[in-house]
Amino acid sequence: MTVKEYKAHPGEKVLTINSMNNYIKKVEYAVRGRIAIRAEEIRDELSAGKKFPFDTVVNCNIGNPQQLNQKPITFFRQVASLCENPDLLSDDKAHLVSQLYPSDAITRAKQLLKDIGPSIGAYSHSQGVPAIRRTVANFLEKRDNSSPANINHIYLTQGASSGVQTILTMLTQDSHSGIMIPIPQYPLYSATLSLVGATPVPYYLDERQQWGLDIEQLTRIVKEARHNGTDVRALVIINPGNPTGQCLTKENLTEILTFCYNQQLVLLADEVYQTNIYTKERPFISFRKALLDHPLEHVKKQVELVSFHSISKGMVGECGRRGGYFECINLNQDILDQIYKMASVSLCPNIHGQILVDLMCHPPQPNDPSYPLYREEYEAIYQSLKRRSQRLEDAFNAMEGVSCQPAQGSMYLFPTITLPKKAIQEAQRRGLAPDAFYSEEMLEATGVCVVPGSGFGQVEGTYHFRSTFLPEEHLFDAFCSNIEAFHAKFLNQYKD
Amino acid sequence: MTVKEYKAHPGEKVLTINSMNNYIKKVEYAVRGRIAIRAEEIRDELSAGKKFPFDTVVNCNIGNPQQLNQKPITFFRQVASLCENPDLLSDDKAHLVSQLYPSDAITRAKQLLKDIGPSIGAYSHSQGVPAIRRTVANFLEKRDNSSPANINHIYLTQGASSGVQTILTMLTQDSHSGIMIPIPQYPLYSATLSLVGATPVPYYLDERQQWGLDIEQLTRIVKEARHNGTDVRALVIINPGNPTGQCLTKENLTEILTFCYNQQLVLLADEVYQTNIYTKERPFISFRKALLDHPLEHVKKQVELVSFHSISKGMVGECGRRGGYFECINLNQDILDQIYKMASVSLCPNIHGQILVDLMCHPPQPNDPSYPLYREEYEAIYQSLKRRSQRLEDAFNAMEGVSCQPAQGSMYLFPTITLPKKAIQEAQRRGLAPDAFYSEEMLEATGVCVVPGSGFGQVEGTYHFRSTFLPEEHLFDAFCSNIEAFHAKFLNQYKD
Repeated sequence: MTVKEYKAHPGEKVLTINSMNNYIKKVEYAVRGRIAIRAEEIRDELSAGKKFPFDTVVNCNIGNPQQLNQKPITFFRQVASLCENPDLLSDDKAHLVSQLYPSDAITRAKQLLKDIGPSIGAYSHSQGVPAIRRTVANFLEKRDNSSPANINHIYLTQGASSGVQTILTMLTQDSHSGIMIPIPQYPLYSATLSLVGATPVPYYLDERQQWGLDIEQLTRIVKEARHNGTDVRALVIINPGNPTGQCLTKENLTEILTFCYNQQLVLLADEVYQTNIYTKERPFISFRKALLDHPLEHVKKQVELVSFHSISKGMVGECGRRGGYFECINLNQDILDQIYKMASVSLCPNIHGQILVDLMCHPPQPNDPSYPLYREEYEAIYQSLKRRSQRLEDAFNAMEGVSCQPAQGSMYLFPTITLPKKAIQEAQRRGLAPDAFYSEEMLEATGVCVVPGSGFGQVEGTYHFRSTFLPEEHLFDAFCSNIEAFHAKFLNQYKD
Repeated sequence: MTVKEYKAHPGEKVLTINSMNNYIKKVEYAVRGRIAIRAEEIRDELSAGKKFPFDTVVNCNIGNPQQLNQKPITFFRQVASLCENPDLLSDDKAHLVSQLYPSDAITRAKQLLKDIGPSIGAYSHSQGVPAIRRTVANFLEKRDNSSPANINHIYLTQGASSGVQTILTMLTQDSHSGIMIPIPQYPLYSATLSLVGATPVPYYLDERQQWGLDIEQLTRIVKEARHNGTDVRALVIINPGNPTGQCLTKENLTEILTFCYNQQLVLLADEVYQTNIYTKERPFISFRKALLDHPLEHVKKQVELVSFHSISKGMVGECGRRGGYFECINLNQDILDQIYKMASVSLCPNIHGQILVDLMCHPPQPNDPSYPLYREEYEAIYQSLKRRSQRLEDAFNAMEGVSCQPAQGSMYLFPTITLPKKAIQEAQRRGLAPDAFYSEEMLEATGVCVVPGSGFGQVEGTYHFRSTFLPEEHLFDAFCSNIEAFHAKFLNQYKD
């Protein structure tokens, strides 16, 4: 080995784009990539008085409901604020506090403080507060009408993302190890695999079949990848889909589990949109339930499942707190120990996120004083999301050359756009993917920030973008018509 | 390449200790390792009624002040609870809320909510809320009596640990890249390097010189490592030291910076214990200040410095929230962009941690209504920590065969223990490091959980343990005498 020469005064930095970790360099994360950075710049320029054809930037690039004024659930915030300031729970404050807080919020905060220990400012158990994991276990049992969950197999996390990163890293090591990921996908998956230097093994969702997935294709792909020397270790399913919004049937879940058994794959189920479900025909069913109900005993006993959930989405939308959990089924004890060790290196998931996990999994119940308000708030957000998803889907489908699958679930629509040749040429001239060019033009014209389909992956030669339907309902008509007007103008400008 | 055979029904799991990521398997993190896990078990067994020679487990293995009943700073919690429940800030609640909260807490919460945006439940800027980074920048300027800091070079994080992990990963890639770390060290460093497969290049702190470090040794080590083919990229300094508690002089900081310049090393300064300083002769001086004041212009302009701070330690002690920041000096813009990208993949540091960073960096000022209480609380915690560090140091130094350097800073003491041969043999018989055996015996006898020196690294043939001095002051005499009694009994049992 040649020893590198170290000169004393080279004037060059040690950490440069050439010397840095090459895996990090390859990471791509479009949701907060180039176009989102430009949106931030425009926001700054707007506040500095610069003129644009619009007054505000609308961030539809990211599922960030409260940024677009979705109201937090009152009960959740009441309990959290009492935990934060336990002084309010002392007897001498009771006459004032009882005028500000419902009694069940006070009771719940006292219980949580007791469960958490002397203070919410202390590190908890690395895996999360045991009593909060118990709440999650009860929630899973009830949701799936199933046998009890084991609190030792539940890990609280700082959002679903950090859990996904831990498990993907555990499963891979280098370019020899591969993970099956959907295309289109949420780019956390490809980013994490890039970081480890592992190989993404893409499978395609079929847009014409409402972004469905088909076992024959999965089988062909895993065999091919293995034939080419990739040690395929796991299958990632995002259900409800992100960016694609589809919701899988129980039959489909069952056959996917059988496939995982036959092909010896760990199943990673990203189920963070499980309450964002907008059609009666496609209720959410968890992989956990499908596994515990699986007709084949050997599948049920054998398939290793890790499923992820989060406080960031649904009607909770508390993404800024970074809270979530994952549950493991059929994992070996020594692997659970290794996950615990990795959780310990980061000490513990933040307690505020843990508190919200507890509240999400055990909200006010009928007969609780806070129940009526909770239901009202929850239902209002839900119905509004449903209306807005439909309204935006209709708008997209009415636009020339645009076609959009219905949102069965999630917070996103992912329309396909037919771009004129001239637009594609102009994009190439600028060194951009055609849908990135389209999205950037949309931002400059309307202030609406979406993410180009190329950031999620798509069938070659097709173009998409992902948009949330989170802008407030009273602004929604204007939001849709701004996009419509931009689109018409864009097509006109680049028409063949 | 031979293609692996996949049999359909092998009855073996996919993810096993043999198939998992080998780098993760190699990670060690003693602070929450075997002995801490045993302490948890004992705690459970105690609550289940099992008898031990003690009533409670005392966790001295981890700097977790509020777990041992350190009171949170009232003002911080007041502001945080108002941010959590902004409903309390509405006009119709003012007559009640003004009886529960001081006016400056109300004003500060309103300001923070305005700075953060519509809701603390939303994702913030990936790098942290700009106004909070501004607070950090002002704090740095004031602390160091220096030129202003740049908010674009500050990254808010989920505790210092996550920042350290990001930067170490950025700097390394494989076993070819090396990072100089102190021995003894805080095991986050070795754990993170294990995870990337990078090479730790250890340098030794000199226990006889109050755990000082010596440039000649550093120079010899970096040259040797490079000669052996390791691309040494950075030097880690923990100041005040963990587990060793020393605090470096400005002269020492200055020469370390010159060393980094001469040897082309990035300097990573872990300064999370910067307010845990117990001797007047050794005030904390930041590497930032030493760099900005450096007498050699080329050093000042060239040396890349990343310094880390946290809300977990000091008199704040809010470790359960996971908040902190790092500041970069002299880093290339394209590297700053890459750090931003990595921050984006995790979306944002949790907002509650960010709020506490703001409060820590800008606490109540003289003339603010909350100032007197804030000072009183801060000073009480500080003086008590100082007394307890002295009390425990004295106790250790009075014990036979134990010698302990004074705690100039941090939350830990790291005494060296001379173990009798028979004890060492007994440890070997049990397959344990001798100080691990000693520490486990201490736990079983007293309920006190410390971390063996072997978890931090130490000169071969020497034995240590790390203990916090965080047990409550009214329990401190009993705490010390329990350890003393155990130690005497242990020596007696294994005397040569």
